[in-house]
Amino acid sequence: MNHAAQSTPVTGHAAPSATRPAISVGIVGASGYAGGELARILMDHPGIAQLQVASAHHAGTYLHALHPHLRPAFGHDPIRIVSLDDLAPCDVLFLAQRHGMSMGEIDRFARYAPRIIDLSADFRLHDPQDYPRWYGHAHADATRLATAVYGIPELHRSELPDATLISGAGCLATAAILGLRPLVATGLLDQQLPLVIEGKVGSSALGATPAPGSHHPERSHVVRAYAPTGHRHTAEIAQELRWPIASGSVSGGIAFSATAVELVRGVAITAHAFIREKLTERDLWQIYRQAYRDEPFIRLVKERAGVYRYPEPKVLAGTNFCDIGFEVDPHAQRIVIIAALDNLMKGAASNAIQALNCAMGWDETTGLRFTGLHPI
Amino acid sequence: MNHAAQSTPVTGHAAPSATRPAISVGIVGASGYAGGELARILMDHPGIAQLQVASAHHAGTYLHALHPHLRPAFGHDPIRIVSLDDLAPCDVLFLAQRHGMSMGEIDRFARYAPRIIDLSADFRLHDPQDYPRWYGHAHADATRLATAVYGIPELHRSELPDATLISGAGCLATAAILGLRPLVATGLLDQQLPLVIEGKVGSSALGATPAPGSHHPERSHVVRAYAPTGHRHTAEIAQELRWPIASGSVSGGIAFSATAVELVRGVAITAHAFIREKLTERDLWQIYRQAYRDEPFIRLVKERAGVYRYPEPKVLAGTNFCDIGFEVDPHAQRIVIIAALDNLMKGAASNAIQALNCAMGWDETTGLRFTGLHPI
Amino acid sequence: MNHAAQSTPVTGHAAPSATRPAISVGIVGASGYAGGELARILMDHPGIAQLQVASAHHAGTYLHALHPHLRPAFGHDPIRIVSLDDLAPCDVLFLAQRHGMSMGEIDRFARYAPRIIDLSADFRLHDPQDYPRWYGHAHADATRLATAVYGIPELHRSELPDATLISGAGCLATAAILGLRPLVATGLLDQQLPLVIEGKVGSSALGATPAPGSHHPERSHVVRAYAPTGHRHTAEIAQELRWPIASGSVSGGIAFSATAVELVRGVAITAHAFIREKLTERDLWQIYRQAYRDEPFIRLVKERAGVYRYPEPKVLAGTNFCDIGFEVDPHAQRIVIIAALDNLMKGAASNAIQALNCAMGWDETTGLRFTGLHPI
Amino acid sequence: MNHAAQSTPVTGHAAPSATRPAISVGIVGASGYAGGELARILMDHPGIAQLQVASAHHAGTYLHALHPHLRPAFGHDPIRIVSLDDLAPCDVLFLAQRHGMSMGEIDRFARYAPRIIDLSADFRLHDPQDYPRWYGHAHADATRLATAVYGIPELHRSELPDATLISGAGCLATAAILGLRPLVATGLLDQQLPLVIEGKVGSSALGATPAPGSHHPERSHVVRAYAPTGHRHTAEIAQELRWPIASGSVSGGIAFSATAVELVRGVAITAHAFIREKLTERDLWQIYRQAYRDEPFIRLVKERAGVYRYPEPKVLAGTNFCDIGFEVDPHAQRIVIIAALDNLMKGAASNAIQALNCAMGWDETTGLRFTGLHPI
Repeated sequence: MNHAAQSTPVTGHAAPSATRPAISVGIVGASGYAGGELARILMDHPGIAQLQVASAHHAGTYLHALHPHLRPAFGHDPIRIVSLDDLAPCDVLFLAQRHGMSMGEIDRFARYAPRIIDLSADFRLHDPQDYPRWYGHAHADATRLATAVYGIPELHRSELPDATLISGAGCLATAAILGLRPLVATGLLDQQLPLVIEGKVGSSALGATPAPGSHHPERSHVVRAYAPTGHRHTAEIAQELRWPIASGSVSGGIAFSATAVELVRGVAITAHAFIREKLTERDLWQIYRQAYRDEPFIRLVKERAGVYRYPEPKVLAGTNFCDIGFEVDPHAQRIVIIAALDNLMKGAASNAIQALNCAMGWDETTGLRFTGLHPI
Repeated sequence: MNHAAQSTPVTGHAAPSATRPAISVGIVGASGYAGGELARILMDHPGIAQLQVASAHHAGTYLHALHPHLRPAFGHDPIRIVSLDDLAPCDVLFLAQRHGMSMGEIDRFARYAPRIIDLSADFRLHDPQDYPRWYGHAHADATRLATAVYGIPELHRSELPDATLISGAGCLATAAILGLRPLVATGLLDQQLPLVIEGKVGSSALGATPAPGSHHPERSHVVRAYAPTGHRHTAEIAQELRWPIASGSVSGGIAFSATAVELVRGVAITAHAFIREKLTERDLWQIYRQAYRDEPFIRLVKERAGVYRYPEPKVLAGTNFCDIGFEVDPHAQRIVIIAALDNLMKGAASNAIQALNCAMGWDETTGLRFTGLHPI
Repeated sequence: MNHAAQSTPVTGHAAPSATRPAISVGIVGASGYAGGELARILMDHPGIAQLQVASAHHAGTYLHALHPHLRPAFGHDPIRIVSLDDLAPCDVLFLAQRHGMSMGEIDRFARYAPRIIDLSADFRLHDPQDYPRWYGHAHADATRLATAVYGIPELHRSELPDATLISGAGCLATAAILGLRPLVATGLLDQQLPLVIEGKVGSSALGATPAPGSHHPERSHVVRAYAPTGHRHTAEIAQELRWPIASGSVSGGIAFSATAVELVRGVAITAHAFIREKLTERDLWQIYRQAYRDEPFIRLVKERAGVYRYPEPKVLAGTNFCDIGFEVDPHAQRIVIIAALDNLMKGAASNAIQALNCAMGWDETTGLRFTGLHPI
Repeated sequence: MNHAAQSTPVTGHAAPSATRPAISVGIVGASGYAGGELARILMDHPGIAQLQVASAHHAGTYLHALHPHLRPAFGHDPIRIVSLDDLAPCDVLFLAQRHGMSMGEIDRFARYAPRIIDLSADFRLHDPQDYPRWYGHAHADATRLATAVYGIPELHRSELPDATLISGAGCLATAAILGLRPLVATGLLDQQLPLVIEGKVGSSALGATPAPGSHHPERSHVVRAYAPTGHRHTAEIAQELRWPIASGSVSGGIAFSATAVELVRGVAITAHAFIREKLTERDLWQIYRQAYRDEPFIRLVKERAGVYRYPEPKVLAGTNFCDIGFEVDPHAQRIVIIAALDNLMKGAASNAIQALNCAMGWDETTGLRFTGLHPI
């Protein structure tokens, strides 16, 4: 389609080429929210020839019984969840289970598929010592940990084609890392001062299992400090920003807090970075444009007027975008960075598909062109 | 893609064939919510070669300034809104303006395009007398009113290819009509008894213009009876169901009420229909399956267990589905019908695209395959 | 306080007189939402000298651990929940347990207190046969059932002083009964036609126990038909309106449906009543004013302009009001009645305190003068 | 009332004593949200003998037409809004107008009443130079500015009895100041490091006037960075904490950002304070208990378990509480402080009544004992 006058060229429907045939994939952990969204995207992905969905506890039920948006229309058969035992070998296996369930089971899953994309936290941190520190238990497979690729394509695109184990990234961590990395990379931040990051997060980020704190009358309209300190994503952020976690000295370090807000889907971070020399807005535009101008899923959002002047997670629901904005404090050596994304998409499922597209050498946006809804 | 084991055949990406070339379209009323959603779908629709968006009050601004979900990614030019004067001739023109603005202007718009799809209420009612009765003013173009097709494809598919003026349908009306028509068509309803329809509606249905009642602190979490009687959609429902509007006799007639609820997108209706003879659930399954089994955008939702046992508007956000469910009252000669849809999609923009697809002879689902998000 | 100019006389702070001494009360079921609200009101009620809160599963914990609004300020000791065994005898015992738990235990509870106010459904229905029909089990204490007073003071005020067992009423039932009773009492409704009642209800009405359907991502922003037919409150409504439940004949009967909406607190009903002769708005004003002009907790809400033209549950949060509005259908012999209340207050806890005030001969508004919050 | 066993002494209903007679008060700006809440509390306040409500634009209308929660019950006359010209002299005048409207008009208002409580920002900042800097215009009455008392009683209680002009405080500022002041007062914070404060705020904080950004479909479920830098409350916070606003040096200074979230009522702040020496949780308990143990409206909220472990604005709706919690970062020299309150209450109307109670020498909690609702 071409627009008349102020036209926008839109590329034709990208697909695996004749020389890149469609593949077969499986999802383990189909009952979770990320599993459901993986299934949705893969069902309509032209690179996927066969899809299996498996779950330890829900084998035999229809996928749409858990994920009502996947209810088939007339003439389309429903998809039934299989047990892990019934899973057939495939080209790529997505693991969308709870943290801790993949760590010791990669040998087993590797028998199903030569390539694994694990959305849990089990292979995110390179240093095995970080697991006892942040997750409270030792890592069970330090060998594979060393080979896993941290699967944010904007950071590790070139490593993906050869990776046999790709790790998903934390939702808040993805927003923080993509939002801050270009600024950190300038070397202009004052490492003696803290890097303060406030994350806000919707209820779907805590998963599909009911709990007292997720009971609607209790969770509704909260502004709930659920991790003022000690949030596990701190470790990923430090690793990918190559910025120290504060460690007893007053100076510097990542100071991360997370607050649950009324929202089902979406996370946003507000980061306060302190600079040694004055940067202007124009400098920041340049820094960020330079870093991301070839990225299909990063947008800079910084308007002088209007309702949507900065990134806003609600309009990103269902998309693979990470929107990033910034503001220079006129009173201080402070840059405020705002980044937002859909925790189940760019923060989980669609980011994993983007990584798959990269790994397979497909057009990176295949299956991921939904631009969101407004109003919502 | 084929699913292993319990596989679902998914049709290949439908597109206008070589003999059905892509067309040029325009949208008048790009600042409204339906206009924004029309633009979103058309931008990614393989049948559309050129898209213009026009607005009387916003010419010159970028489309994404009004509709943040249409913000282009890097490498894509933003779309600029043109004035009506700058609109170039095209194949199909969508009118997405407020009620009353199309009525007297079709001659003018017909100079731009041979086919017009008007989403307002101006050409919905066949009887000119219904306009003074329900809209408070006479109709300005009774001649064209006689030729306009009420554009719900499920009802008037065969009339669409030859139509030069297609009318959109009311969002609540669409849910009520699609939900009730198969049951009414059986002739088993007791016409001496009322057909009671309760509509619930989200805030986007009242448009993009701020008003005291839409101010967030006042509109938030309402259960607000905004039209206990006299709702304008009553007229459409009566027309398309061929069921009388109550008129002074105690017996029969459509008894419609509408309540605003906390929701941005989505409408649902609960209808209470009274039957002369007992119908079983099985009878109803048969009636509805028979009526809709070839419909790509109607789903029957009636489960015995689980959280989503009946249609639920929130999981339809962004989709063109109308979900329909029913329950037989074990204590009475009552059938309860529930129907839900996204008011901006099946209740406005995507329904209009579906009508376009039908009119052009394209695969009816082209551009409309998004299945929604969960959770949301 | 007297207002200058347009002044409103506000009665002085009502309290038990010297001859009506303060009493001791207990609450069984302190962990539930109604139990928490009972505690809140009773803690500040001048007629209450001593308050005990008991719970089978939470003995030993602080009341504010379950009900954060009861967290004491500095200088005030927290209240600790006691076990049922540690409950001391008192003047009045409130039972705020789940349905079915009081039915067979009144003998036991009667040993603690000479007067019991049971908020569950166990003593609402006079006819023991209604329990198997609507609740699925036989009634365990038909003798006491015969003596229990249905505790809506507006209906049964005179029976309360002598009652030893007072039953609370269902939240939706209270709205429906208070909203419809004056109209039904006129005898002008057409008994051949159905009385259709649509209830909308917030999430707190289903209690404090997490469930899959109350998980925030699933419960958020629903318009969920949770009881299209067969809702248990139908039986109470029929009993108190003395209107038949439909029973196989097509004509007449209560046709009740309930829909869950996004709201924590609050219920609203829309009722469609069909009349034999035309009634005017003026007639309705007269009927309702006549019925309720001495009622401190009923307000008629029917405005020609403004945002709040009909009853709205959100502005009733925390109050004991039942607001009632109506509209005459200009096209039909239909009256639409709207009624709203806070399900935990007038639909449960504060209504029980109002009943207590009546039973004790105290000013009926004692402890219940909170007028709500706006905006909210 | 005394509780059995684990009893809580509750003080008797406080009221002006015989020697402290009831007074007459007026509210200017009755149409705003703070004005409505002032009216609600004053109508039920035993120290108030007469109440007038005035508005420039709404004279003649009923108060409940703007504030539906003030709709009178049967037997109570509605309150009518008077014009400013019709305002009668009174003892205390509350100004609840928009910022900038009091500044030049105190002479005029002083003719009505010897004591003025102004809820706007016009008399909050002691330094006249702060007005051009933060509010964009010069101050019109520097003389009176010098005498105005910043009306947070916890900070300036002793100055209130003699004050003729009391200023309200900003809602976010109140949370930040009350949350941080005890910690700042220890002198243990590192002044070379920034004091980062993230405010989250509900929609009522922006007032009762509709705007594009408050239109429900646009404002619903936002996580909207509305003031990443430059928020006006920064000036109040700096003044009352006696902590510098950052001024060009990289070190130190208040770094404040504000984010709008889905909530009507309520604000919360998360503050990141950096210390020179390690403080333990126990130290913090001591610091805060010491500072606030005599305060009736400050509560420390820090639990090891349960859903409500930190301050939560939603359970404070309608109350005069400011809840404060804290957490020591085990990885860094960071203290995280969380504080929450109802922006219309402790952040506006009820705080002003608390100041009135102090000024008059009444029990400070008079009229302010509502403890909030749960769930909500």
